[in-house]
Formats: sequence, structure tokens, C-alpha cells
Amino acid sequence: METLKMTVESKNGLAKTMKGLVYGGPGIIELKEIPKPGIQKPTDALVKILKTTICGTDLGILHGKTPTCKPGTTLGHEGVGIVEEVGTAVRNFKIGDHVIISCITSDGTCEYCKKQMYSHCENGGWILGHLINGTQAEYVRIPHADNSLHPIPAGADEEALVMLSDILPTGHEIGVLNGQVKPGDTIAIVGAGPVGMSALLTAQFYSPAKIYVIDLDDNRLALAKKFGATHTINSATTDVAKQILSETKDGVDVAIEAVGAPATFDICQHIIRPGGHIANIGVHGKSIDLQIQNLWIQNITITMGLVNTNTTPLLLKTVLSGKIDPNQLITHHFKLDEILKAYEVFGNPAKEKSMKVIIEP
Amino acid sequence: METLKMTVESKNGLAKTMKGLVYGGPGIIELKEIPKPGIQKPTDALVKILKTTICGTDLGILHGKTPTCKPGTTLGHEGVGIVEEVGTAVRNFKIGDHVIISCITSDGTCEYCKKQMYSHCENGGWILGHLINGTQAEYVRIPHADNSLHPIPAGADEEALVMLSDILPTGHEIGVLNGQVKPGDTIAIVGAGPVGMSALLTAQFYSPAKIYVIDLDDNRLALAKKFGATHTINSATTDVAKQILSETKDGVDVAIEAVGAPATFDICQHIIRPGGHIANIGVHGKSIDLQIQNLWIQNITITMGLVNTNTTPLLLKTVLSGKIDPNQLITHHFKLDEILKAYEVFGNPAKEKSMKVIIEP
Amino acid sequence: METLKMTVESKNGLAKTMKGLVYGGPGIIELKEIPKPGIQKPTDALVKILKTTICGTDLGILHGKTPTCKPGTTLGHEGVGIVEEVGTAVRNFKIGDHVIISCITSDGTCEYCKKQMYSHCENGGWILGHLINGTQAEYVRIPHADNSLHPIPAGADEEALVMLSDILPTGHEIGVLNGQVKPGDTIAIVGAGPVGMSALLTAQFYSPAKIYVIDLDDNRLALAKKFGATHTINSATTDVAKQILSETKDGVDVAIEAVGAPATFDICQHIIRPGGHIANIGVHGKSIDLQIQNLWIQNITITMGLVNTNTTPLLLKTVLSGKIDPNQLITHHFKLDEILKAYEVFGNPAKEKSMKVIIEP
Amino acid sequence: METLKMTVESKNGLAKTMKGLVYGGPGIIELKEIPKPGIQKPTDALVKILKTTICGTDLGILHGKTPTCKPGTTLGHEGVGIVEEVGTAVRNFKIGDHVIISCITSDGTCEYCKKQMYSHCENGGWILGHLINGTQAEYVRIPHADNSLHPIPAGADEEALVMLSDILPTGHEIGVLNGQVKPGDTIAIVGAGPVGMSALLTAQFYSPAKIYVIDLDDNRLALAKKFGATHTINSATTDVAKQILSETKDGVDVAIEAVGAPATFDICQHIIRPGGHIANIGVHGKSIDLQIQNLWIQNITITMGLVNTNTTPLLLKTVLSGKIDPNQLITHHFKLDEILKAYEVFGNPAKEKSMKVIIEP
Repeated sequence: METLKMTVESKNGLAKTMKGLVYGGPGIIELKEIPKPGIQKPTDALVKILKTTICGTDLGILHGKTPTCKPGTTLGHEGVGIVEEVGTAVRNFKIGDHVIISCITSDGTCEYCKKQMYSHCENGGWILGHLINGTQAEYVRIPHADNSLHPIPAGADEEALVMLSDILPTGHEIGVLNGQVKPGDTIAIVGAGPVGMSALLTAQFYSPAKIYVIDLDDNRLALAKKFGATHTINSATTDVAKQILSETKDGVDVAIEAVGAPATFDICQHIIRPGGHIANIGVHGKSIDLQIQNLWIQNITITMGLVNTNTTPLLLKTVLSGKIDPNQLITHHFKLDEILKAYEVFGNPAKEKSMKVIIEP
Repeated sequence: METLKMTVESKNGLAKTMKGLVYGGPGIIELKEIPKPGIQKPTDALVKILKTTICGTDLGILHGKTPTCKPGTTLGHEGVGIVEEVGTAVRNFKIGDHVIISCITSDGTCEYCKKQMYSHCENGGWILGHLINGTQAEYVRIPHADNSLHPIPAGADEEALVMLSDILPTGHEIGVLNGQVKPGDTIAIVGAGPVGMSALLTAQFYSPAKIYVIDLDDNRLALAKKFGATHTINSATTDVAKQILSETKDGVDVAIEAVGAPATFDICQHIIRPGGHIANIGVHGKSIDLQIQNLWIQNITITMGLVNTNTTPLLLKTVLSGKIDPNQLITHHFKLDEILKAYEVFGNPAKEKSMKVIIEP
Repeated sequence: METLKMTVESKNGLAKTMKGLVYGGPGIIELKEIPKPGIQKPTDALVKILKTTICGTDLGILHGKTPTCKPGTTLGHEGVGIVEEVGTAVRNFKIGDHVIISCITSDGTCEYCKKQMYSHCENGGWILGHLINGTQAEYVRIPHADNSLHPIPAGADEEALVMLSDILPTGHEIGVLNGQVKPGDTIAIVGAGPVGMSALLTAQFYSPAKIYVIDLDDNRLALAKKFGATHTINSATTDVAKQILSETKDGVDVAIEAVGAPATFDICQHIIRPGGHIANIGVHGKSIDLQIQNLWIQNITITMGLVNTNTTPLLLKTVLSGKIDPNQLITHHFKLDEILKAYEVFGNPAKEKSMKVIIEP
Repeated sequence: METLKMTVESKNGLAKTMKGLVYGGPGIIELKEIPKPGIQKPTDALVKILKTTICGTDLGILHGKTPTCKPGTTLGHEGVGIVEEVGTAVRNFKIGDHVIISCITSDGTCEYCKKQMYSHCENGGWILGHLINGTQAEYVRIPHADNSLHPIPAGADEEALVMLSDILPTGHEIGVLNGQVKPGDTIAIVGAGPVGMSALLTAQFYSPAKIYVIDLDDNRLALAKKFGATHTINSATTDVAKQILSETKDGVDVAIEAVGAPATFDICQHIIRPGGHIANIGVHGKSIDLQIQNLWIQNITITMGLVNTNTTPLLLKTVLSGKIDPNQLITHHFKLDEILKAYEVFGNPAKEKSMKVIIEP
């Protein structure tokens, strides 16, 4: 009988509409009435969005840098919400549960998922707001819900938890854990945007002694100081490598690239000490000139990758126990109807002093 | 409509019967006609058994040592088979696929599964032939099929792969990996039964220099030599600790307990060198007297646990590429109708010179 | 000429005397005039003590529990001082350097040292104040000085650094690192003496969410709260296991034993969750009854060992950067002439509310 | 008296001469009579060379690629020999001991040595035959002898052990361990010279399922097959990336670069699968164009470095126990008087079918 019920619901679903921010091709996004999604597979959940946000990747799509995202797609891969409906095979969630939506969808059973590389799930990965409709809408369908949602305990600060959809696990896994930050380390984070800041906040879980943050924007550097940076450098006006090499023994233990450009990667490869780790988080658009003629003898490690979100449960515990306050990253609030304004503010951080923006229905 | 279809099938299923070996309480097992299982949840698969085997744990149940196993349960948690039917949410398998059945059932999405501790899956773990009906039958229902079965490529030696259901991953994960066997190491395996032998075979993946195998049965020790042991000791006639300490520098790097008794654990704690690892595989029925007054200063590590089967895909690759031949472990073959005889042979290894037995429909 | 010079110096050395606390057999310690030590090997350094302290192990010797320590030995294995003289092969230190004395002496080149297991150095290990004369004196000879001393940067708080000789690395390495404390974890520390408190302070480098501290002394539990415990339990009046199991999911991720008694280890084995780590720091005088009949299936790891002090440089960085304040552990100060009084105060912590005591010349 | 004795010995040493191969500037090497070295520091040993060999790095110096090596330096950093004399602080070796000379000199006590990064020893590193006189001579002075020599047990095949000075630990540590080769893996080794072959031999310690070896020389590829490669590809005639991607799922788990050129690194970055490791061993003369615009999302790790030789003791055990036969790598033998001929043969591997050459006094 399930199919029948689903069909009926689907019919109702198709009959109903909702608001969603739809990508219309390079430079074009539009908030419009679109069909409300329904359950398609027994492992799906339908989530009503309570809060969502905008990511640098969304700007990338808007600017035409992600040709795999087709016009007509609803954007967004972050958010918290309430489970509205679940497929017959969903075990871990039921209607009414409050949930964090992971930016990574993962089936939990493919070859990559079995290695906890959810980023490369053969039936998922980063698909929300990219290959399937996303979270900048009133509702979103989440495939493989059991492994792609996280339960929110009663009483939690849900706005803070929006930061757990993507940027905190990204900073933590791809920056801090890949970089192997240890107590007493000297580390550098190049780029003080949302993901660099997430690396800054989560690096402190492991008690490094010195944290350099490098950026071009003095406002962001001031924020970084507030968030725990011990040293900040404006790379517009200072020779970063020269300064860091003069202030450290042989350079930094860990350099985290959180921009995605040849110049910022270049800083990393010039300040890394022998035995150090360069952890690349940045999304790069072109190749970089790796100075391997100098580095081959330096016993360094370079890592890069998309977030797996396998540390999201761990991060949730740190937020709930007050070890970290992700609210610090939130600078602006908008209603869904104002989302185009939200894109503008988020897209002009130097002018708007924006970091993360919250969007509510 | 699915429910209806399932009901119909269930009805047919209930109508049909099959042969299965049913536990009847301490000391009692009986091969009898029982209902053929059907799909119960969308994540289930129904598997037709091609080959199964008997485990020491099955003997434990038979001898009344596992009160959690209730009379009426079909025994067995190992085997290979053909997928006969799948639930609507099963993605990774389809009708006709040849599969290895994992002794551990795991949903892939609970807190423990997300840490690859499938052994403690909140909706699974070791349930087959224990809490739900098992594989010593013509058919078996496998819950959470996507994560609890492994595909067999065409042309593989399926009989060898029965060893991948339980004993090879157990020896590998709980013995060899937990023990951290490294190239050049001196290791000792106490107990040359099927699991000890599995540890012996898989330890050689990591090229230890010296492998001691200890047992009371000279036949098994001779087999161990054939399987790669460099030294064997019959603990009935030799002071194992004295001999090993005289032949090594400070003792062994890794001691693997594959029996489950105070005396065999005791050998391990007397032969372990500073910095060494004791990896317990044995299923113990009573506590042990840990000589911590001597060991606290020796910087040793003791591990224990149920297999997770998360290295089964890795082991499958080593079998397919000829790195290991699990057929060596198989000593006898029986038809399902002869399974009581198979239990007798398996249960009297010294007399029957048995190791693993294969049972076919 | 070196030998001659050494002989002359030795003669002078023998001619000169100093004060030192000498073990005279069970129950007997005496502060008396003893020969001032001199350089014996080219790798030795002679250190003038600035500050030393007393360890639980010293009480153990006094109470006759360490028969390997012979009467006539000067006690003490902790302290900071000034290098007074160095052997011809010492590279890393020169006369006048301020240094932390490691409780572990290590040559840096034997099989164990090459694995960073300095605790088991074939030419060292725990020998200071045990097999050779120690630090509770005006001067101490340090063998293998290059690897057994740590330089103190100018301006550092030297009193705090006395805690780096033994208890902070012990708590950190044998408790926290062996226990693999992670962000978000729930951990329990059984025993709130100096080493348990060191585990408490250094555990916080890794941001656990919940820290239980268990002890019999309410004063120490109150201190533990000040030092960062989130929960404390007096095991004299509360069923610890019952309470922790009721307040956590399946028990704690990490249980650190910092007492060295069957009852305290027993708490650990009853509160550990599947997949958890029991890290034993305590010095045990008798065997323990390991409940392996329950634990074999729980996938737990038990570690134990003597400190290696290989994280002392890391800890030094955390102290210098203010990540941790070891001064919190110091409750009393004495002159060397008052050392017998210091032993009394240190030996009666419940009455004296003492934790670590500092002794100065 | 030591200083006097040393001076006398030094005088004798200066009086005596020996044969040594001296670098005379780009393109110039000369076998000539040079002063026999003597002990300079208490931690030195003087070793009489029994067997030495030539490394690709020696060719690099000869071709003027290593400006840090000054004319007048005796070349060579590999060999086995007999201890002829030891300084007063040497503990681990005595006159008459047979030893392996490590290509890396390390004091064992500096910050880097304490992390087992002997490659970056602050008082050593790669200095033999580079910054100080080396092993292509009748005698060599070894600084920090305790940590820079390895004892050869009686009866060992000393010629095979020459391969333990450099190439086997280099292939093992920088190729295989950095690449994290696991049982069942598919790996590729790009470059079938001595170091690539060492990676090939030592990779098999960890039982990969498939090993591709890529080179331009069919003779070397045929040897690689003999040494355990399962697949070989001549990159002169085949599109390596295309072939490997068509034969594997998503590429290889580990790609080991053992040449040191942009083209060979490029193969690695095109065949690596998501989650894979590129382990660079090659000595590079120019930068490479890292395709990070494609790789950032692939969760790969790139490592590079100079050998630490901290696995030499482990490798020695594997050789002594017959797990590996390094003699396979030796193709030619010469007397020291014929060393110029040896350079010619070693420098023309395609023509001479040479791999490693042994040079004896």
C-alpha cells in the first residue's frame, strides 16, 4: 500500500508549492514558487527548513564556476529543520524531530562510506543544492536520511547548529585534523572567511600555543583576534613569510589554506617547517606551482579534500557542552523573502562586515 | 502496494518450509523443517545458502554457554549464498547476486557504525544464529543487507570465501590489527584453532620475522608450521614462557590469545615485552588474574573485542589476488542433511583432525 | 687531560660535601652531609638544584615498597636547576643553563629510545633517586644529559616547571594520550592526587565535554572542580559505576586509573563503554581481577606504563604559552632543611590539604 | 689525558693516508691518496670500509646539482665496515664490531631527532659524502656513532646489508610507509631505479594486491616483474594514466614517485584515486604544476621527504629472517681502484643493465 500512499502524497506534494531560491544560470538566482518536494525513496526524509545560510560555494555557483550545477536547481546545502515525513526505511528519525542537515549526503554502505569518506559516497557526496534541490527553500528532500541528518537534542541553540552543516566540520576535518594540530604547536591559517574562522575555532580544541591568522581585511583580522588568534598579519601590507620565519623556529607546524588561490597556497609552502603539514581547505580554480625542488627534502605533508562530516557528532557534543560557540560566526539575519539581499551582504564581506548570515522562513 | 506484496509473499513464505538446524536448549540441536523466512523490512535481503560452516561459538551455544540464544533459534552466522529477494530499500544487491554473509549485521548509520564499530551496531551486531535465525539452513533473512553482505565477483572460489564471514576478519582485526603486527616483529599466537590459524594467516600480511604458535595438539602445531609458523610449542610438555623468554630479547612484540581461558591469557602476560601488545580474541567464561603489579611499568597494551568485519572488503581483495588461501583451513565437507555429523567432527578436532567444515544444501 | 681533570675534580668533589636526603631502609630517611657528586662520564652533567619536590613514589620507597632502591641512595627524581658542569660529550647544555630534570634518564640511542620508549632505556629509565642518587639534595649528577634535561627559556616561571619533571608528562602520556581523549568525549579520572590532577589539567588540551573526577577526599574533589572537572563523585559515599552508567550513554569513553589499587581499577572496568579506553597510571602492588568474561566483547583497550617524558617539550610549550598553569598543583613550600616536615605534609594530604610541595635549598 | 691522546692519534692520522674518491667540482671525481681520518669528538667512530656503493645522489653531485657539496669532499654515504676506533663517549659500539653505516647522521637528542626525524638532525642529517667526507674510501669518520651506525650480527650477509644504508629505508619510509600501503591495495611505483625497486620490495611487506611499475627501460621493467610487480607499463609507448584508470576502480590507492621529474609526478597526480596517497621519493630539480583545481576535492595526501632511517632496525630484522633479499638489487662488483669504472656502469643503467654496484677495497 505504500506506493499508493506515496503516490497520493506525491500528488498532493506536486499540487502544493513552496518558495525556493533557484539558480537560473551564471549570474542568475531567483526566489520563486516551486513544487514542494515529496518522499521519493524509502530512505528519504522531507525536512521543513527552520534556518539556512549561504556558503562561498553558493557564490561560486552563482558566478558560473560550477558547471555541474544545472539551471533550475534550488541552491543551499546547510540548515536545520523539522522532519515532516520519512520513507519506510528510515530508522533514525521520525516526524517532528529537529535535525541538522549535513552538507554531505551519504548512504553509509558504499565502499567510500565504509571508510568514512562520506565526501565520496557513490550515491551521494555533495549533491544538495548542487545536483539535487537544496536547502534555501521552505522544504528539502534529504536522501539517505539516516546517515545525512543529525538529531538536535531538546533545548539546543539551533541557530548555532546551522554552522555544523558544513563550515565547522570543514574547518575541523580538512583543516585541523588533516593538519594534525597538537598542543604547543605553532599554526597559521591563511584566510579569515567563514571556513578559516571555523578552522580557528576548532583548532583550539587541540591547544596550539601560537595561532597566526592571515587575511587582507583588517576587520576580519580583528575578529580573528577575538576568536582566539594570537597573531594576525595583513598580507596586503606585510611580507607574511618573512615575518613568520623570523618569529618562529624554522616556520610553522601546520599551515591551513582557507582561500583557494595560488598566492595563499604559496604563503603556506613558504612558511611550513620541516615535518610540517599543509592542510588545504580552499576550493581552487587553477593549478599551483608546487616548489617541490625545495620541499622534497623537508618531509612535509600536503592534504586536501571535501569535508566528510564524520566528525559532526563529535562537534555537536562540543557545542552542547559549551566548548565552542559557533554563534560568534553569525553576523546577519534575514527572512527567506530577503534572500537576495542576504546574498548581497554575504557576497561583500569587506563592505558589510559579514561572516555567516542566517535565513529564516 | 508494497505491504500487500510483502504480505502475499509472506504468506507464501509461511506456506513454504525449509530445513534448518534449530537450537533446542543446552545440548540439543535438531535439523528440521521450519518456515522459510521472508522479507520483513525494506532493508532486508533473503539469501539462499550455498555453503555454510560451524563456528566455536555455535558449540558454545550448544553447550549452554550463551543464554541470550533462545531455544527455537536456527544456528549459524557464516556462509555464502545467492540473493533470492530484496527489500525495497536495498541498493547494493539484487536478485541473483552471489554474496558473502557477514557474521555481523550492521545498519551503517548508528553511533557505533559511524565509528566502524559494526560489532556494536545498535540495530545489529552479532545477531545471526544468536538473536535471530541464522545460516545453518536453506535460506536466511539478512537485515540491513546493504551493509551486512559483501558481493562475490564472478569466478571467485566461493568455498574459500566462507572463511570471510567470520574467522578471517576476526583473526585479522581482533588479533593482528589490534596487536599492531609489524615487519620484523616476533609474535606469538596462543591457540591453533580456526581463529588462531586465521590470525596466523593474516599476520603474514605484515611480514613478522618470527611467529610462535602454541597449542596442546601436535597435529594442529604441524598444520601451523605448514601455514607459516616459524616456531611451534606444545604447551602440554613445555614451559612456554621460559622457552620464549630464553629465545627472544625481552619477550614477544605481540601476543595473540585465541583460546579464551585463564591459562592461555597467562602465557600472553608472561611473554609480552615492554611496549608490546596483547590482543585477546578468545571468548572468556571467567575473569583472569591480571599481573598488573608487574605489568604496570611495562608499557603494554591489552585489547579485546568482537570482530567489526570492516576489513572484510580488504580481505576479499587479498583472497582474490592470491595473497592468502583460506581453503587451507577447510578439512571436511558435509551435506546439510549430515550437519549433526559435521558438529561431531568439528567438536572433536584432536580426534578428527578437523579445522573448518563446509556444509552444503 | 680530561681524565686527569676529572680525577682532580672528583677528588675535590669527594672533598666537598653537600646536603642530601638519604634513604636508610624501610621507614628511614635522613637529611645529611654527603659527598657532592662529580662528572663520571663524558655524557654527564652536574646540576645545582634550585627547586625539587616529593613524589608518591618517594613515599613508596620510604614505606619499603621498592626493594630495588638500596639504603644509602639519595631520593628524588624531580626538579629544576642550573648546570654546574658538563662532560666533554655534552652538546645541548653548557654551564649556567637553567634546566628541567626529567624523571627519566635516557641515552637516546638504544632500541627502546629509538622508539621513544625512554621509560625502558637500556642505559637509563627511572634510575634517579632509585638506582642512583637523586634530586633531593643540593646537587645531582645527570647521566645522558643531552636527552635527560630540558632547557628553560629565560623568564619562565621555574617553579611551575618542576611539575614537568614527572607528574604532568605522566598524566598526559600515560593517562590522556594512552586514553586517546578526544573533543566531546566523556572521561573519568579515578584518583585526584597529583597525577590524577595532572591528567585532569592535560586532558583539557583535547576538549572533552564531560570530566568526572572520583576520589575519597572532598577537599581534593573541590580542587578538581576548580581545575576543570565538570562532575565529581566521592566514592566513599556513592556507587560510582551506578551513577556514571545512569548519567551517560553506555559509560565513559576514557577511564583513567590514577591510584593503583584493585578497587579503583574495578571502577574503571565497570564504567567503560564499548570501544573505550582504560588508561592505567597507578602503581599497583597486587594483581587485579579483570572481568574479561564481560569485557572481551566490549572492544576495549587497556594501557599501562611508566612515563616516557617524550612529550615534555610539547608540555613546556603549553606552559610557556599559558595554556596550562601547573602552579595550581603546588600547595606548600619548604627549605631543604625542612624536608622531613615536607614529607610529613605531603604524606598526609587529607589532613594537610597538600598536593605538590616545593623544596628549595 | 684524552685530549692529548686524541692529538697524538690525530697526528698519526694525518701522517697516514688512504685512498678516497674526491669530488673536484662539477664533472670531476678522482680516486687519490688523502689523509686517513681520525676521531675528532668523543661521540665519533672510525670505520674501516668493507663494502660501499654508489647512489643516484652521488651522480647528482658529480653533475654539479648539489652546490652545498664542496670540491675536496670524499663522496659516498652508504656502506658496511668494521669499527676501527671509538671516541670516549661511544656506548653502543666497540673496536672490531661490524656495522651498517646509515646515510643519515643523527645525534638522537635534538628537537627533530626526538621526533624520529633524523633526516633533519640539527647536528647531522645527510652530511656524509656531502658536507663531510664520505664512505667511498678506505676509512670514514662517523659522527654521533651511537645513533648513526647499526650493528651487524655474526653470520649476516654483509653485502646485502649495504642496501640498508640508504635505498631500502628510503623506499620503505618515504615510499611505502608515507604512502600507507595496505593489504589488498592497488599501488603504482613510477620509476624502476634502485629506490623504486626498494619501494617495490618493501611494499610487499604489506601485501598489496596489485603493483604497477612504470619505467622507460624494458630491462628494468622485466626485473620489476621478477621482484614482484604484478603489472608493468613502459611509459615511452603507453598512456599510463589512461591504462591504469581503465584497469582500476577510480585509480590507485598509492602512487609512489621515484624519479624526481615533472612528468613522472604528473603521472602520479592523474592516477591517484579519491582518498589516495602520493608518496614522493624523487629528488626534484624544478617545481611541478599541481592540478589542485581537480585534486582539492579528491581527499588526497601528498608526502615528500628525506629518509629518516628510523626503520633500519626493523628492516634489518626482515633481511635477517629472509623476508626480503636485497642482493637482488646488486648487479655489479668492483674494487675500489676501479671506482671510476663503477661510476660509469652505474651511470648508464640502460646500456649496462646495472642497478646497484658493490665496491670493495
